[in-house]
Amino acid sequence: MPKQVRAEVTRASILRGAAEVFDRYGYAATTLSDVIAQSGVTKGALYFHFSSKEDLAKAVVEEQHMLSVQPSRDWLQHEGQGLESIIRLSIGLATQLLDDVVVRAGIRLTLEQGTFGVLQADPYREWVGVIEQLMDRAVEEGDVRTNIDTAALARFVVGAFTGVQLLSEVFTGRDDLLRRVQDMWEILLPSLVTPRKLPHFRRIASLAESNG
Amino acid sequence: MPKQVRAEVTRASILRGAAEVFDRYGYAATTLSDVIAQSGVTKGALYFHFSSKEDLAKAVVEEQHMLSVQPSRDWLQHEGQGLESIIRLSIGLATQLLDDVVVRAGIRLTLEQGTFGVLQADPYREWVGVIEQLMDRAVEEGDVRTNIDTAALARFVVGAFTGVQLLSEVFTGRDDLLRRVQDMWEILLPSLVTPRKLPHFRRIASLAESNG
Repeated sequence: MPKQVRAEVTRASILRGAAEVFDRYGYAATTLSDVIAQSGVTKGALYFHFSSKEDLAKAVVEEQHMLSVQPSRDWLQHEGQGLESIIRLSIGLATQLLDDVVVRAGIRLTLEQGTFGVLQADPYREWVGVIEQLMDRAVEEGDVRTNIDTAALARFVVGAFTGVQLLSEVFTGRDDLLRRVQDMWEILLPSLVTPRKLPHFRRIASLAESNG
Repeated sequence: MPKQVRAEVTRASILRGAAEVFDRYGYAATTLSDVIAQSGVTKGALYFHFSSKEDLAKAVVEEQHMLSVQPSRDWLQHEGQGLESIIRLSIGLATQLLDDVVVRAGIRLTLEQGTFGVLQADPYREWVGVIEQLMDRAVEEGDVRTNIDTAALARFVVGAFTGVQLLSEVFTGRDDLLRRVQDMWEILLPSLVTPRKLPHFRRIASLAESNG
C-alpha cells in the first residue's frame, strides 16, 4: 500500500477501536491503552494520529456527525416531502445507532458533553436547523398544520428523539429503539397533520418497526 | 449541637458542596479535593461520611431523586386530575432544575450514567411508572383520549422531557427551560385531549412561562 493510504487505514482502525471502547465504557473510564489494545496498533501509531484522549473523542464525534447528518443534507436536496423526510431521518438515525458503533460512541460522547470540557451544541444545532427547514417545507406542502411554530417544533423533535433513544438505551440496551421511535410518531402525528393525512404518515412511521 | 445533629449538618454540607462541583464539572472532572474546598469541611470529615467519589455521586443522585419524585408521590395521593398533575409535575421539575443545585447535579450525573459504572435505570423507571398511573387516571377522567397506549405515552413523555431539558441546557444554560416545557405541552396536547378541553390544559401549561 502507498504510505498515505496505509496511514489512512491505520487512522480508521484507531478511530473504530476508540469508538468501540468509548461506546462500552464512556469517556471517563476509557484509557488510551484500551484504544491501543482494541485497535491493534502501536502506541507510536496512535500518537502519530491523535495527541490525546480528548482529540480522539472529538474525532469520533465528528465522524459520527458526518455519518448521521449527511443523509439529512441529502434529504434537503431532494424535492421530496418534508414530513416524510423527517420521519425517515429519525428511522435512519435509529438504525445507525443499532448498526454502527461509531454512531453509538459519538452520540454517547455528545451526551456526556462537558465531561471532556466541550459543550457539544453544534451537532444539536445542525439537527434543529435541518428539521426546521423540512418542517417549513411540510407546511408549504400542506402536510403540517399552518398554525404550528416550526422552530419550536424542530427543537422539540430533536430533544424528544435524544431523550427517547437515551431511555431505550437505559431500559433495553436499545433493543426496543425502532419501536419507541414509531411510538414517538404515533403520539406526535395527530398534533401535526390533518386526520385525512394521518394514515399515510402512520404508514411511513411504521417502517421503523418492520425494519427492526 | 448534639453530636448526631452536627454529623448530619456536616453530611448535608458535603452533599451540597459535591452537588455544586458535580453540576459545574461533571463526574469525571470532579475531584474529592474540589468537594472539600467547596464544602469547607476537612478531609477526615468527608471520609467519615463518604468512602469515594462514586459513593458521593450516588448520594447526590438519591437526594435529587427524593426531592424530585416526592412531589409526584404527593400528586398520586391527591384526588386531583391526572393530566393536570402531569403538567404541573413537569413545571415543578423544571423549576427545581433552575433553583436547586442538588437537582441539577443529580440530573447531570444520571445523564452521565455509565461514566461511574452504574446504569441509572431506576430514576427513569419510577418516573415512567408515576406518569403512566396519572395518564390512566386522565383517561378515566375523560381528559385524555381512550385510544391512547398510556404506557407508551408515559415513556415518551419522560424521554421527551429528558431531552428537552438537555437541549435547553446545551443551548441556553437552561435560561429558556420553562418556555421549552410549555412548547412541549403546546405540541403534545392536541394529540392527547379533545379540542373542547384544549384551552383548559393550555392554560395550565402556560404557568410554565409565567413562573419563569
